[in-house]
This record gives sequence, C-alpha cells and structure tokens, in this order.
Amino acid sequence: MEDSPARAPSGAVGLTYLVAASQILGLAVVTMTGAWMGQYRGGIAWDSSKLQLNVHPLCMVIGMVFLQGDALLVYRVFRNESKRSTKILHGLLHALALVIALVGLIAIFQYHKKQGFPDMYSLHSWCGFLAFGFYFIQWLLGLCFFLFPGASFSLRSRYKPQHVFFGACLFLVSVATALLGILEMLLFKIRDTYSAFAPEGILANLLGLLLVMFGAVVGYVLTRDEWRQPPLAEELALSTDFKTLTEEGSPTSSR
Amino acid sequence: MEDSPARAPSGAVGLTYLVAASQILGLAVVTMTGAWMGQYRGGIAWDSSKLQLNVHPLCMVIGMVFLQGDALLVYRVFRNESKRSTKILHGLLHALALVIALVGLIAIFQYHKKQGFPDMYSLHSWCGFLAFGFYFIQWLLGLCFFLFPGASFSLRSRYKPQHVFFGACLFLVSVATALLGILEMLLFKIRDTYSAFAPEGILANLLGLLLVMFGAVVGYVLTRDEWRQPPLAEELALSTDFKTLTEEGSPTSSR
Repeated sequence: MEDSPARAPSGAVGLTYLVAASQILGLAVVTMTGAWMGQYRGGIAWDSSKLQLNVHPLCMVIGMVFLQGDALLVYRVFRNESKRSTKILHGLLHALALVIALVGLIAIFQYHKKQGFPDMYSLHSWCGFLAFGFYFIQWLLGLCFFLFPGASFSLRSRYKPQHVFFGACLFLVSVATALLGILEMLLFKIRDTYSAFAPEGILANLLGLLLVMFGAVVGYVLTRDEWRQPPLAEELALSTDFKTLTEEGSPTSSR
Repeated sequence: MEDSPARAPSGAVGLTYLVAASQILGLAVVTMTGAWMGQYRGGIAWDSSKLQLNVHPLCMVIGMVFLQGDALLVYRVFRNESKRSTKILHGLLHALALVIALVGLIAIFQYHKKQGFPDMYSLHSWCGFLAFGFYFIQWLLGLCFFLFPGASFSLRSRYKPQHVFFGACLFLVSVATALLGILEMLLFKIRDTYSAFAPEGILANLLGLLLVMFGAVVGYVLTRDEWRQPPLAEELALSTDFKTLTEEGSPTSSR
C-alpha cells in the first residue's frame, strides 16, 4: 500500500466497528449459504446421493472464508493481549477452518463419485485445489516457524512478512473460489431461469456481493497501519540490528 | 498487513525482477485471451452478431486487469521520479483502462441486444458492474483530489490511504470478475466437453491461474514497505503536525 503520512486519529473505536461489521457480514454469508441450500436446493444430508452436494458450499464458506478471515483478524482484535495466546488462537482457528473445509471436500468428491460426475475439471475446482493445498502448506509452515521452538528468531522475522502476505493472498483466492462456486452451481442448476432473474439467482448473487464485502472489510482492517500489533521489544532491537547491517554494507554471505 | 520488524535487505533488484514478472504475466494473460478467442471462439469482429461477444473478454482483460494493474505499479516503478509526473502517468493509464473497458462493455451489451439475450443477471455481470462503476468514481475522485489544485493538502493526505485501499480492492474485484467471466463463457459454450478436459477448457483454466498470479505479484509489489515511494518533505512535516495535534488532544472541530 501507499504511505499514509498523515494518519487520521482513528483509534480502537473504528477498529471495533469494522470488526463488528466483518462478523455481521461473515455470519450473513454463512446464514445465506444455509438458506440457499435449505430453501432452494432441498437441504443438507450426508447419506444422500443428491443432498451431499449441498454440504460442500456450506462447509467451504464456514471454513475457507469465515473462519479463515477471522483467524487473520485475531492479531487486530487481540492486539494488546499476549502474543503467544493470540498466535495459538490464530493457529487453532486455521486448524478448525482446515478440518471443516476437508469435510466439504470429502462431500463433493463422494457426491461426484455417487453421481458418476468427473472431478477437477472446472476453474472453480482448480482454484479451490490450489487454495486448499497452499492453505494447508501455509499452516504447516506457520506451525514449524512460529509455534515449535526450533526456528531461530531472525529466521522467524524474515519469514513473517511472507507468511502474512501469502495468508492474505490465500484468503482472497478462497473468496474468489467461493464466487466461482456460486456461479458454477447456478449455471448447472437453474441455467434457464437464472437469466429471467429467478429469486434463487438473485439470492445467490447477493451472497456473492456479501462475500466480496466480507473480503474487503477484512482486507481493510488488516492493511491499516494504526491497528497493527505493536512489535515486541526484541523485534525492535533486531530491526535496528538489521538496519545497521544493511547500512554498513556488511557481508551477507556470512549470515 | 502485519508489521515486519526485520526487513530483509531486498533493494531495487528484487523490485525489478518482480515488476518484470508482472509484465510477463500480464502480457501472457492478454495474449492467452486473444489466443482463446482466435483459436476456439472464431476470432474477433465488431460488425458481427456472434463475434462481437469476443471483443468483450479481450477489452476487459486489457483494461480492467492489465492496464489497471500497471497503473497501480507506476508508483513503485518510478518511485524516484517526480511525484507529479508519476501521478499524471497513473491517471492516464487508468483513463486508458477505462476507455478500453468501456469499448468491451459496449461490445457485450450490443451482442446481447443482437442475440436477444437478457443483460445483467449473472454474478459476473453484477461484480463487473460494481467494479467498473466504482472504478470510474474512484478515477473521478482521484482527479478532483490529486490533480486539480482545489483540494487542500491536509484533505489530500487524509483521502490518500482510502484511495490507495479502494484502488487495490477494485483491482482485485476486477481480477475476480475476469475469473467469473472465464467460467461463465466455458459453461455456456463448451459445457459438455469441459468436463472431459477439452483443450479449450484447459487453456481457459490456465488463463484463470495466470490472472490469479498477476494479481498476486502486483499485490506483493504494492504491499512491500521497502518499495514505497519516499514521502515528500511537506508530507513528513504534516505527519508530525497531525501527531502533535492527536497527542495534545486538540479540538478537531476547529479543523
């Protein structure tokens, strides 16, 4: 983002309102997905050759969108709490998101098998495969670097900006994949009435817009400098060390 | 994004490589869209009841994705040039993007009219309408705040972070809309062979992944602190003024 030399004096109040807005949007997204499946797609059932399909969108929206987004927000919501507790909550929320998403993936593959439909040919499935695969890898890397005591402090500090960027990236790709999933389901299920503005199509389109808004609000909260977690004293010290090293042109090969 | 206390000494070389990668990806996206339309969709023609459809994806990808992305990158590529020249280039690239996208929009509406197809019912069209509409509004606001001499310096400085965030947001929504457009076209045109991994489907899916990569590389370059344009001296001074005002709790009503 661009530098913001003159920051408005927007404190914790703005953050509270925006986090509240994100939760309202996130819950609306989950509720609306459930309402869509319940009202127009016959409901949800695991042991059904048809209704198992509907488990997929609900699980993916809860796991890959709502919980993933909330896991990113914990560093802003609890920015004055102990860093270790926040880190554990962040990791647990992502783990829960991964498990729920996995259930959603099993549902869609089992449904395809029961119906004799091919797997993994659409753009939605390709984006979803990448999002879930890299999300799992990112979670494992996060665990190794930040929760297990093995990684050195300087290694952690160098990996952290990459972890943060790819985390935000994966969240946005997950939101885009959800949009693709909505469109794919509509074009498979109500292709003829969709163009006549059928209520189901309008509901699902509105769900898509709410997903975009959820992504935007989470993105806004994450990118505001003034709501970042204050760095630890040792991070500041390390930052100064790095600066000194860089300014003095010390040999990088020795590190 | 999270704070990165220990920045790696990655200078202009890393930026150069990533900007080069973004341009290769961007050109690949445009070329691949053209190849898709040329090879599988019968080519492009304005005065045709069928081929006018194909003008739409090409124009939208050039305008709303490639040029919009490049307009965001100019502040990183020319970060040591005069701020005024960079600003004018930024505005001109966005203007060109808007004009090309407008041609793409006229193409799709004329095609729909010729074919008797309804407009604006799909999630792709809803997202596209919002992306284009807000992109135009954002461009007008940018023009009023940053290029016309009317706006005060403090007003500019307060609007700038919002302009930057919404600009990045609109770019990402444009990329997501392009993904929706790819899926929509595939499900309308090759629904039966898409699931059998038809070459056209694979080409278009790969185009989708390249679009995601273009968005990610542009996003990465924009969010790195070390590649930001250095603030002007007067911006730094103003920043200090604001800080003093905030710390002293001066009345905001007088401003």
